Amino acid sequence: MQDVRAQQQEQPIAFAIHGGAGTIVRGSMSAELEQEYRAKLTEALQAGYGVLQRNGSSLDAVETAIRILEDSPLFNAGKGAVLTNKGTAELDASIMDGRTRAAGAVARVTTVKNPITLARLVMEESPHVMLAGDGAEQFAVEHGLEIVPNEYFQTEQRRAQLRRIQEAEQQKSSGANEAGISSKFGTVGAVALDRMGNLAAGTSTGGMTNKRFGRVGDSPIIGAGTYADNETCAVSSTGHGEYFIRGVVAYDIAARMRYAGLSLAEASNAVIHGRLTEMGGTGGVIALDRKGNIAMPFNTEGMYRGYVDTKGNVVVEIYRE
Amino acid sequence: MQDVRAQQQEQPIAFAIHGGAGTIVRGSMSAELEQEYRAKLTEALQAGYGVLQRNGSSLDAVETAIRILEDSPLFNAGKGAVLTNKGTAELDASIMDGRTRAAGAVARVTTVKNPITLARLVMEESPHVMLAGDGAEQFAVEHGLEIVPNEYFQTEQRRAQLRRIQEAEQQKSSGANEAGISSKFGTVGAVALDRMGNLAAGTSTGGMTNKRFGRVGDSPIIGAGTYADNETCAVSSTGHGEYFIRGVVAYDIAARMRYAGLSLAEASNAVIHGRLTEMGGTGGVIALDRKGNIAMPFNTEGMYRGYVDTKGNVVVEIYRE
Repeated sequence: MQDVRAQQQEQPIAFAIHGGAGTIVRGSMSAELEQEYRAKLTEALQAGYGVLQRNGSSLDAVETAIRILEDSPLFNAGKGAVLTNKGTAELDASIMDGRTRAAGAVARVTTVKNPITLARLVMEESPHVMLAGDGAEQFAVEHGLEIVPNEYFQTEQRRAQLRRIQEAEQQKSSGANEAGISSKFGTVGAVALDRMGNLAAGTSTGGMTNKRFGRVGDSPIIGAGTYADNETCAVSSTGHGEYFIRGVVAYDIAARMRYAGLSLAEASNAVIHGRLTEMGGTGGVIALDRKGNIAMPFNTEGMYRGYVDTKGNVVVEIYRE
Repeated sequence: MQDVRAQQQEQPIAFAIHGGAGTIVRGSMSAELEQEYRAKLTEALQAGYGVLQRNGSSLDAVETAIRILEDSPLFNAGKGAVLTNKGTAELDASIMDGRTRAAGAVARVTTVKNPITLARLVMEESPHVMLAGDGAEQFAVEHGLEIVPNEYFQTEQRRAQLRRIQEAEQQKSSGANEAGISSKFGTVGAVALDRMGNLAAGTSTGGMTNKRFGRVGDSPIIGAGTYADNETCAVSSTGHGEYFIRGVVAYDIAARMRYAGLSLAEASNAVIHGRLTEMGGTGGVIALDRKGNIAMPFNTEGMYRGYVDTKGNVVVEIYRE
C-alpha cells in the first residue's frame, strides 16, 4: 500500500483548459470583463486540478472543469452558447478516455444542461460513441440527466450578436461572413493527466453563430475536436471547425508523436502552425502527454486558456505573448 | 496538347468499391443471391471505372458507383438500408476530395434518395463539412435534390430483420446483441484515382439495425469512415462503426504512410489486422494510393468488394480467399 502511495506521489499530474480561440486583441475588452474571464478560467482550472490532487480520474477532472465553463455565460458552451439562425442553442460535445480509448459524443443537443456529462454517459452507458439530436436527448432523459428549456442557454448578449450578424447578412453577404468569423469561437475544453497515468480530453461548444442546416463542427468529432490515448497525448481543439475536421487535427498530433517520433510540442506546433495554417484554418489546441508536458499552440490573436503544470504552477492567459 | 494527352495516358487510373464486411460465409447464401450481389457490384464498379476512363474526376467516379449501390436494395445504404428501432431508415454518408482535402458529410437523413450526392453538395455548395438531421434535409430541398418518402428506403427484408432482432431483444438481451452483430454491416463505399492523379473516397450507410437514440456511426465521420489526401491515400471503411471512430481508422492508414513511411498495404494491414483487431473491432477498408495500389484488408468472414486495377483487371470478391 505504501508502495502504491509512493508511486502515486511520483506520478505527475497536470491539467489544462481552454475557453476558445479567436480575435481576442489586448485592449479590446474592458478590464472588468477580462477579470471575469480570468476568474472563471481559474475556477474551472482549480476545480479540475483539485480532482486530480485528490487522486480522482482524469475523466472526472475534465468533466468537472467543462461543466463549470458550460454553466458560465462567458463561453460558447452550455449557458451562453451562440445561437443558430433560428435563435436557438444547439450544443455539441465529446469526451475520450486515454486509458481505453473509449469515447462519447453528442451533436445538436438542445435541452441537456451539461452536454459534456451526456457525452460521458454515452461513453459509459451506451454501446455507441455518437448520438445526435432528439435521440441523444431521449437517452439523456432516460438516464435522468438535468433537462432545461432551450431558453436557459440563451443570453441577451448572444441574441444581440445574432441580430447583428443577421442584419449584416441582409445588407451584404460578405459582411456576414466577416462578422461570423469573429464570433464563431469560444468552444471550451480540457485535458488531464491523473495519478494513475491516465489521460483524458473533452470539448463542448455551441458551434457557430447563425449556423443553419444542422451544421455540426469538430467538437463532437473524435479525432478532430477531441482525442486521448495514453500512448501519445490528450487533445482538445477550438477554432474554425471545418478545418479541424478536414485536417483530423486532434489525432494528427497523436499520429506525429507515435509514428514520426515528435515531442508533444513539436507535433502540436507542426499541426497548428503548419498543417492547419497552410489549409487556411484558424484556431488552437490544448495538448498534454503522459509525462505532463503541456502545449497550447494557436494561430489566432488570442485563446482563453490555463494550465496547472506538474510542479503545481497555475497559469491563466488570454492573449498571444 | 499532345503532351498533356500522353501524360494522361501514362497516369494510372484505379477504382475500388465495397458493399460491407461481415459474417458472409461461403455457402450461407443461395447461388442466385450471390449472383445478384456480384452483378450489382460489377455494375457499380464498371460505372465508376467508366467515369475514370472517360477522364472524369475521381469524385464523379465515387459518387456514380455509390449511387448505384444506394439505389440497390441489396446493400445497407439508400434503398434497402437497415431500419432503426422505430422502423425507419436514417442514413449517413460522407465524401472527401484528395486534391483539396475538402469534405462533406450528412448524418441522420431520412428523405434524401442519394445521401452521397447530398454529402457532395455539402462539400461543394456549403461552407460546412457536416450537416445533420432535418437541417441537412432542408439543405437538400433548397438545392433541389431528389426527395423520397422514408418508405422508399424500407424493404420487406429489412422489416423482417428488424422484427427478428426486436423479438430476440425481448426474449434475451444478449441474443439481441448477437443478432445485431451479424446484421449491422453492409455499408457501401468507393475509392478512386483519376487521370489527373487525384484521389477521392466516399461512404454511405443505413447504420445498425434496430439503432436507437440517434446513433451515428463512422460513415459520416471524416478520418474514421472516409479519408482522402493525394499525398497518401483514399480510404472507405465498413464495419462496427464505434471502433472505427475510436481508432480514427481511415486517417490512421494515411498517417502511417506519411509519418512512418509504410506502404499502402503495410499501413492498411497494420490498422485492420493490428490496431482494429486488438481493440476488438470488426470490419474492413478499401484503400487506394496515388500510384494506383489497392488494399482491401478485413478481419471478418467476408467483405463484398471489387476493384479495377491500373492494368484494367476487373475483380469482384465476396469471401475471404
